[in-house]
Amino acid sequence: MEKIESIKEFGGWLNRYRHRSQVCDCEMTFSVYLPPLAQTEKVPAVYWLSGLTCTDDNFRVKAGAQRYAAELGLALIIPDTSPRGPEVPDVPERYDLGQGAGFYVNATQPPWSKNYQMYDYVTRELPALVESELPLIPGRRAISGHSMGGHGALICALKELGRYQSVSAFAPICHPMACSWGQGCFKAYLGNNREMWATYDAARLIEDGAAAIPLLIDQGIADEFLAQQLHSTSLERVCAARHFPLTLRWQEGYDHSYHFIATFIGEHLAYHADHLRETRTIETAATNPAR
Amino acid sequence: MEKIESIKEFGGWLNRYRHRSQVCDCEMTFSVYLPPLAQTEKVPAVYWLSGLTCTDDNFRVKAGAQRYAAELGLALIIPDTSPRGPEVPDVPERYDLGQGAGFYVNATQPPWSKNYQMYDYVTRELPALVESELPLIPGRRAISGHSMGGHGALICALKELGRYQSVSAFAPICHPMACSWGQGCFKAYLGNNREMWATYDAARLIEDGAAAIPLLIDQGIADEFLAQQLHSTSLERVCAARHFPLTLRWQEGYDHSYHFIATFIGEHLAYHADHLRETRTIETAATNPAR
Repeated sequence: MEKIESIKEFGGWLNRYRHRSQVCDCEMTFSVYLPPLAQTEKVPAVYWLSGLTCTDDNFRVKAGAQRYAAELGLALIIPDTSPRGPEVPDVPERYDLGQGAGFYVNATQPPWSKNYQMYDYVTRELPALVESELPLIPGRRAISGHSMGGHGALICALKELGRYQSVSAFAPICHPMACSWGQGCFKAYLGNNREMWATYDAARLIEDGAAAIPLLIDQGIADEFLAQQLHSTSLERVCAARHFPLTLRWQEGYDHSYHFIATFIGEHLAYHADHLRETRTIETAATNPAR
Repeated sequence: MEKIESIKEFGGWLNRYRHRSQVCDCEMTFSVYLPPLAQTEKVPAVYWLSGLTCTDDNFRVKAGAQRYAAELGLALIIPDTSPRGPEVPDVPERYDLGQGAGFYVNATQPPWSKNYQMYDYVTRELPALVESELPLIPGRRAISGHSMGGHGALICALKELGRYQSVSAFAPICHPMACSWGQGCFKAYLGNNREMWATYDAARLIEDGAAAIPLLIDQGIADEFLAQQLHSTSLERVCAARHFPLTLRWQEGYDHSYHFIATFIGEHLAYHADHLRETRTIETAATNPAR
């Protein structure tokens, strides 16, 4: 991987990298914030998955997360939302399909299947790459995201038991099979088999018996997409039915924007730091023969 | 003035307003962040002047200032950087002259003089408007800015003794008469009389006897514009010669971007809060993201 930009922020470094992705079969760009602590020791990483139309740039510029990451000693790993480039299939006139709308699935349908393998990219290829090249504690990962990226964070954590120590989301698409954004992408990327869709649908994964992990979700009540696209209450219902540990915080007056994310990202990163630290303590005890 | 947007952030409200400016003779747009405290009492205001090419949008999206303003009980007043609109003179092919490059002066030369009255707009018309329409403590004002806006903040505070309780700047253009950005705009807006230029030049205003006020400036050592455009050392020299109370902090590794501003904006707002009102005990809040 090649470092193409490095900017000092809060005593750490906000870097941008480019590399050839094997699974997406194209060049991918991502950003990483390394906190000051990473100059002297390896740190845990919080993966951030962005929403429709975003690149790695939106979160690093708008969320104000680097300040908290610096304080908490967390790295931020910020991938793009889809494969990119002139060779990569796209529907330029649509913001909710193709480039910028990878939906964090492994596409099975042509022409998408050649490049749109974002699930494997985010859960496998990218962690392996950054954990080998950067001062990160291998396997010490949390994941979060916004909207389509909130959906991505939820399914990655629900499908990859033990791969992430904690998960949170801002205004996630909780039940993509039931909303037009999700249906449009699932049909294009996965075909017509709705049972295949269900393997990338957070509400269905929980309903179908995904192992319990603590979920933290913030949802603005003034969110313009709440009624039609997000289906937070469907997730709430299946979690209640299965006694799934969901903390869904309804935030009065907040919309779908990065101003909503900026308001609560500090609490989300503190929540992830707690889980990432807990695991560290447990592992230290377990791997210390003197105890 | 008409409220055209309102977004909840950190418990307060980030609003955008449009109004007819008398002094700029056109419609102007500006943003205001009102902290939670403003729902129950009047608050002091920090005016933020942005740099070349910016509108009111850049600072509100990129600086992460609203979080600190909410904690400190400060309003943020964020004007545009020039008059705007199809009727307003511009040089579309230049980023450093015309719309987006008002340089915070009152233009005396045609065709600019009709609309480019940003000095009077920022120091007179805008404060009168917002202090009459919003929950602000009349006359309780601080001013800060970045690059061209840092120049603007410095000259407003130096020329308007008693009108601002404190002033700070990020990578300000300290001696515009001596750099190409300043010379280009001063020549266009003010003509060839360099003594007129000197009345809008921070270094010259101090050299020529401006009354002492505490100045806080942060300057990145990796700033790509430091050598040619900013002339921070000229300001340092005249301040030393006149025993002017300048705190110029050279920040190693930092560039000219909003990531630099985001890193230090909290300290600048705390500095202004000190001068504007009894400082609240925000240290814990500031270092505990969970709050």
